[in-house]
Formats: sequence, structure tokens, C-alpha cells
Amino acid sequence: MNQIRIEEPNDARVTAYRDIKERDLVGRQERFVAEGKVVLEILLRSERFIAESILLLERRLPLLAGALAERPDVPAYIVNDEVMNQIAGFDVHRGILAIGRRNTLTTPEDLVAAQPEKATLVVCAGISNHDNIGSIFRNAAAFGAGGVLLDQTCCDPLYRKALRVSVGAVLKVPFARFDALDDLPDMLDRLGFRQFALSPGGSTDIGAVAPGGKVALYVGAEGPGLPAAILQRIHSVRIPISKEFDSLNAAAATAIALHHFPVL
Amino acid sequence: MNQIRIEEPNDARVTAYRDIKERDLVGRQERFVAEGKVVLEILLRSERFIAESILLLERRLPLLAGALAERPDVPAYIVNDEVMNQIAGFDVHRGILAIGRRNTLTTPEDLVAAQPEKATLVVCAGISNHDNIGSIFRNAAAFGAGGVLLDQTCCDPLYRKALRVSVGAVLKVPFARFDALDDLPDMLDRLGFRQFALSPGGSTDIGAVAPGGKVALYVGAEGPGLPAAILQRIHSVRIPISKEFDSLNAAAATAIALHHFPVL
Repeated sequence: MNQIRIEEPNDARVTAYRDIKERDLVGRQERFVAEGKVVLEILLRSERFIAESILLLERRLPLLAGALAERPDVPAYIVNDEVMNQIAGFDVHRGILAIGRRNTLTTPEDLVAAQPEKATLVVCAGISNHDNIGSIFRNAAAFGAGGVLLDQTCCDPLYRKALRVSVGAVLKVPFARFDALDDLPDMLDRLGFRQFALSPGGSTDIGAVAPGGKVALYVGAEGPGLPAAILQRIHSVRIPISKEFDSLNAAAATAIALHHFPVL
Repeated sequence: MNQIRIEEPNDARVTAYRDIKERDLVGRQERFVAEGKVVLEILLRSERFIAESILLLERRLPLLAGALAERPDVPAYIVNDEVMNQIAGFDVHRGILAIGRRNTLTTPEDLVAAQPEKATLVVCAGISNHDNIGSIFRNAAAFGAGGVLLDQTCCDPLYRKALRVSVGAVLKVPFARFDALDDLPDMLDRLGFRQFALSPGGSTDIGAVAPGGKVALYVGAEGPGLPAAILQRIHSVRIPISKEFDSLNAAAATAIALHHFPVL
């Protein structure tokens, strides 16, 4: 075990945990913050991500005993409530925090090429809301999706809130950023993916599409939706909703679509 | 038109808009706050809710011109940016606020009895998260559900954040609070509803249940789920997910279930 008691909030070993809330305002970062038991356990068991350290309320130790015992190499800083609040400044993390970073960076090409014969990929364009991106990853994990591809305007799924909303799914489902949405359809075609653009005005009811094989589901932001060029290039599918209501949330639409193309 | 220019943040006519953020912390209230163009328009056209007043940034007037013209009886207080920020204290509402209250209070009995021969009701037990309750209402509206029944431990769907997340669906889909969850199945039985409890361990895959007719879908909180007495009393259905991931979010599960029982 590598448990280190921290008595002083200014201790240099917990610098990474200070002012977490302020750092949220900055853009994509090398390191990320994992909160809560489930996310921490996924991080500690991940190969794609490295747990640099853990910051834990002393009274949470019994809850994490199993996971900590598996990873004696990761320093676990143990604090009391007062020191925790002085370091992390607020109390939403239930006294369980960790700092993680990427171990590997996947390219879209590698991610797509690694998919087996039955696989569903989610392609996100313009999903800039952390709740939505976190929920999309959670749905992707729940229905066994093999990966999430993100355009440059999607927010960072490793951002604290997105990771929390995903219940750690961001650390489980492989993801990669691509440069040009317009280049994806050709690559996915070559690798045998059937491609579907989720759109309220889609040409086919998603329920009429047979599931199975390799599938890529494109999801755009609420409001603008997917770019016209994508909607013209690939098969668009709709989830029929009431005429008296405007639209589904992007994550809810993704849940319904992934439930239609499960890889369980 | 009833547009009243407010120059002083302390003007007694806008008292209801002051310290909105602090009031969020208090429990269920008689009045609620509607934010944004879509929600305000739904409120102004609602029969079940009364718009008491509107607080609007002057530069938002063109955006709301149509809705305001329909309701000259509702006072619209017009302010500049500085006065808006001094009154409402923050800037998430995009300069469009209204105070509403209930016009009528529906009983569960009336809500259930009012359903037509094809209808889906959502029964929520223990949904205490405002994001989830808002999302559930949005999904209910999208798939034409006839109402939402809430137990006493569900949070208030008229709470500011829930109403915003629902994109106004809370004002469109009738809802009612019931006292005892255990009494509902008998009432719904008598009125010819097929009842299904959404549960990760449900006895039947929801995909195997034929849609149609009168349906009641019970949804419990993540974690504890629905009470054992309900799961024993009514037919439980599951949404199959990956063995490697814990659970679906309650709102995502509801989206999938409502998509299976649409009333469009």
C-alpha cells in the first residue's frame, strides 16, 4: 500500500487537486479529474489511462479497500474533511478523487480498423454539452459500442462533469478525434460499415433498418443537427416523435439508436 | 401590449425575480420560474398554468414579439442588461424569464381517467434528480405520453432546472402526485392499463412486449430501483445491456421504453 497522510492543504503532493473548479473553465488538458468510487475503480483498472494519484477522505478508505489493494503503485493521499475541503474547495466528489492521464492516444483510423465483424461506432459532430457527451458515452458502454469518434467541436469527454455523467464510460469506450467529418464516410465505407445519420427529418424510420454487422451512427448537436453534406452523403434515419413537440435530446436519441443496434 | 419599463432593480414589481438562485434551494413552491423563449411561449399558451409576469431584456423583444402580442394581459417588464443582472443575478436565462403558477391541480385519479384508449403513462418513483425528471418529461412529450405520475419522493418538475431541461415539456404533459405507490396498480388495472416496471432484472425483454392500448410504465431511481412490492405485483421488463457495464440512466431507459410504446 502507498497511503500517505496529508495534513497540510498546501502540501505540494496534492497540487494537482487544488482549484479543480477553476481548472474546469480551461479547455482540453493533459490530465483529468476522476470523481467517485465507480469512476476511480474503472481508472485504476484501465490500460488506456494512468492513475497518477488518489485523494481520499480517510472515512472513504473502507469503500475503496479492494481497488487500492490491487494498485499499491498508485500513491493515495489520505485527508480529513477539513483538509479535503481546503484543497478541493467543494463537496460534490463525495471525498473520492483521482488525477488521471492518457496512456495512449488512439487515431480514428486505428479505432475503426480494430472493430470486429459485429460492431457499432458512434460519430459525434458538434456535441458541445458536457451532460450530453457524458450521457452518449454511458449509452455507448451500455449497448456495447466499440468506440466514439468526435469531431474537433465536440467538448472533451474527459472533462470532470462529462466523465462523472458517463459513470466512467469515457474510460471504458475507446474514443478518438478526427479532423474532417467529410472524410469519415469514405473510410467507414472501405471498412464495411453501414452508416446512418440520426436526423429528425431522416428518410427512413430507424425501426425499419435491420440491425447487425458493422454500423456507424452519426449524431449532431441539437438545433443545427448534422451538416447537410453528411445528410446527403449517407443514409439518414429518423426516430418518429410527436408532431406537437420539437425534438429529442441528442443523448436520448443516441440511447434509442444504440438500443436498436446493440452489441451485447 | 402591456410592456412596462423597469429602471430600478429594487422596483417592487419585479420582486418575484430577485434571488432566483437562492430560491432554488427551497422545496416545492407555489410559483415557478420559466426561462428561455421556448418555455416562455409554452407557458403563455398553456391552460394548466398561468403566466403572472415576464421579465425581458429589451434586446430580446423582437424574438418574443409574436407570443407577447397574443397575451397583452400579461405584464412584460422590460429591462436593460445591467438591471437584469442586478435583479436576477446571473446570466443563464438568456434574458428571458417569466413567473408562472398552476391554474389547476390534477389528481392522479382524474389524470388516469382522462386517458384515451391508446395512451402511455409514466409512473416515477424516487426520481430526485432534476436533470432526470426534466429529461423524462421531455421524452414523455416527444413520444406523446398522456401523463406522468410522481410519488412524493420525486423532485418538483416545476423546479427551474427541471423545467429548463424538459424544454417546457413539464408544462405540456399533465402530471400529478400520488400518495402511495402500492395503491396505483389496482387503480390502473381497473381502468384497463397494462402495467410494466422497468428494471435491469426484469423478467421479459421489453422488445418482446407488443405495444398498443393503455400502458403504464413504472420507472424507479438509479441504484435502489423500484420497490420489491411493485416488481412482484406487476410485469417487469428489462432493456438488455452489456454485461460489462452497470446500468442505464433512468431518463435514457425511459426514452427507450417510450419509443417502444409511442402515441404519435
